[in-house]
Amino acid sequence: MSAPFTQPTHADILSAAARIAPHAHVTPVLQARSLDDAAGCALAFKAESMQRGGAFKFRGACNAVYSLEATIAARGVVTHSSGNHGGALALAAKLRSLPCHVVVPEGAVRSKLAAIEAHGAVLHRCAPTIAAREAMCAQVQRDTGADLVHPYADARVIAGQGTAVLELLHARTLDAVVVPVGGGGLASGTAIALAAIAPQTALFLAEPAGAAETLLSLQRGERVTDFTPDTICDGLRGTLGEPNFDILRAHGAEVIAVEDDATRAAMRLLFQRAKLLVEPSSAIALAAVLAQPARFAGKRVGVVLTGGNVDPDALPW
Amino acid sequence: MSAPFTQPTHADILSAAARIAPHAHVTPVLQARSLDDAAGCALAFKAESMQRGGAFKFRGACNAVYSLEATIAARGVVTHSSGNHGGALALAAKLRSLPCHVVVPEGAVRSKLAAIEAHGAVLHRCAPTIAAREAMCAQVQRDTGADLVHPYADARVIAGQGTAVLELLHARTLDAVVVPVGGGGLASGTAIALAAIAPQTALFLAEPAGAAETLLSLQRGERVTDFTPDTICDGLRGTLGEPNFDILRAHGAEVIAVEDDATRAAMRLLFQRAKLLVEPSSAIALAAVLAQPARFAGKRVGVVLTGGNVDPDALPW
Repeated sequence: MSAPFTQPTHADILSAAARIAPHAHVTPVLQARSLDDAAGCALAFKAESMQRGGAFKFRGACNAVYSLEATIAARGVVTHSSGNHGGALALAAKLRSLPCHVVVPEGAVRSKLAAIEAHGAVLHRCAPTIAAREAMCAQVQRDTGADLVHPYADARVIAGQGTAVLELLHARTLDAVVVPVGGGGLASGTAIALAAIAPQTALFLAEPAGAAETLLSLQRGERVTDFTPDTICDGLRGTLGEPNFDILRAHGAEVIAVEDDATRAAMRLLFQRAKLLVEPSSAIALAAVLAQPARFAGKRVGVVLTGGNVDPDALPW
Repeated sequence: MSAPFTQPTHADILSAAARIAPHAHVTPVLQARSLDDAAGCALAFKAESMQRGGAFKFRGACNAVYSLEATIAARGVVTHSSGNHGGALALAAKLRSLPCHVVVPEGAVRSKLAAIEAHGAVLHRCAPTIAAREAMCAQVQRDTGADLVHPYADARVIAGQGTAVLELLHARTLDAVVVPVGGGGLASGTAIALAAIAPQTALFLAEPAGAAETLLSLQRGERVTDFTPDTICDGLRGTLGEPNFDILRAHGAEVIAVEDDATRAAMRLLFQRAKLLVEPSSAIALAAVLAQPARFAGKRVGVVLTGGNVDPDALPW
């Protein structure tokens, strides 16, 4: 049982910022001159890899968990997630002392599952299809009465994710912002915030070429859901959510499709030059800038490095 | 030909801060709550790994290069270095368009040599002993008239390194500061700055157990120079400089000797929890805190993460 979806507004993002402030980090905005030289533009990295739980996902999860009325909250929360959202929800629930259930598809990254369990959530394994995930979620909801906190098609989550770009624009004036797009929670929250506070700042979405259904969906004007993702970016294999599609279409965000090789190279560059450990699903945003230099030449470009939950024994090079 | 050594003062550190400000980064001060939990204290990481050239060494090198009068500067600069100082001096010389010579011992880290060459310095290879390094340096000085910028026994370098803790204390009030010690440039610059602006803040020096001659030297009250370093910390294999010894002895810094296994574990922790890539020679400072928890319990502890120049293909785990 979910409430009907109402698009979050900029006011909801501001409320989210206030709600999560006691719990979330204001993450640093970092620069690396040698990367500016490589990209031909002035890059500002919003290091959400240093957010609690190691990813921006804590913003949305925390906003959702602390939005719940006490009686509903007591029944706990549930979600399905291949990784960072699950860990973030588990952490947020632990902070509020609520039960948390996470439905995880087979094949999820081991270190991310360990993080979910470390925060005391109950894992429910299922087949790696969206149908299996949703069915298992519904079952847990029936069994426990837990509130569903969808990883991206949830207004509270979208509002929470929108807080990252508020902080970024508080620190820097920018001509463009680049964020990765998977389910579209961060992308749509960012679009709403930018429209309200910096309408002249262009929004670009970096999407794996092997899972570029957001690009297709926005081109066709209708949501494409029938595709098989093939990408190293484990956080971006999901399908763009329906409300997320509506928000992104309305805001005119532009998608840049990026090959995995370029993403791998960007991840290594961030490692060598900026000394930052980020996931492939984050490095893709820098890769998008490097892939289309003419588009960003001489500009001030904000790049959201969404997460850093990488297994140190399985670096992709 | 070097000028006789005069100990730098706090005023020299302030001058260095002003001199390097147009060129050096004010590096971020970062936190990671899960590391605070692990350490039992509030850690503030000064991320000199994000300094230009990837290490704090740029501060001292830049101060030295920009201190030179034009006629002397035109003859260039020379140093001996197994890595980061050489790269830093090469970068600083390039910024001022001066020739730069770097004497490097065999066995130095490959990626650090590549960085020195990438900045256009001339490499001079020699045997890996301090005598061979100094002889080759003297030869280059005779041949070129270049000014020697010693990696740590140089007042300009010590003053430059002292600027890092100024920034750290500007950002945070601290009960203790922990820095790694090798030749002692950073350690002695930090000691001078702390004595002037935060005399109540304790200074701890993290030193590899396999190269713990600073510990011995301060215990004995005389400089120990006869030892063979055996440590993963390639930046800390050098011998504490004579002026550095005098400064550290006068300021009463305390040394914590750290085993390489603890340093390796701390490097991995910073990687996994803080998403930061640092060298073993930097991770040792966190390892020192974790090794002696009683000493730091409940305190506000600044840790200087001195550099991040690690070969991504040769992570030590």
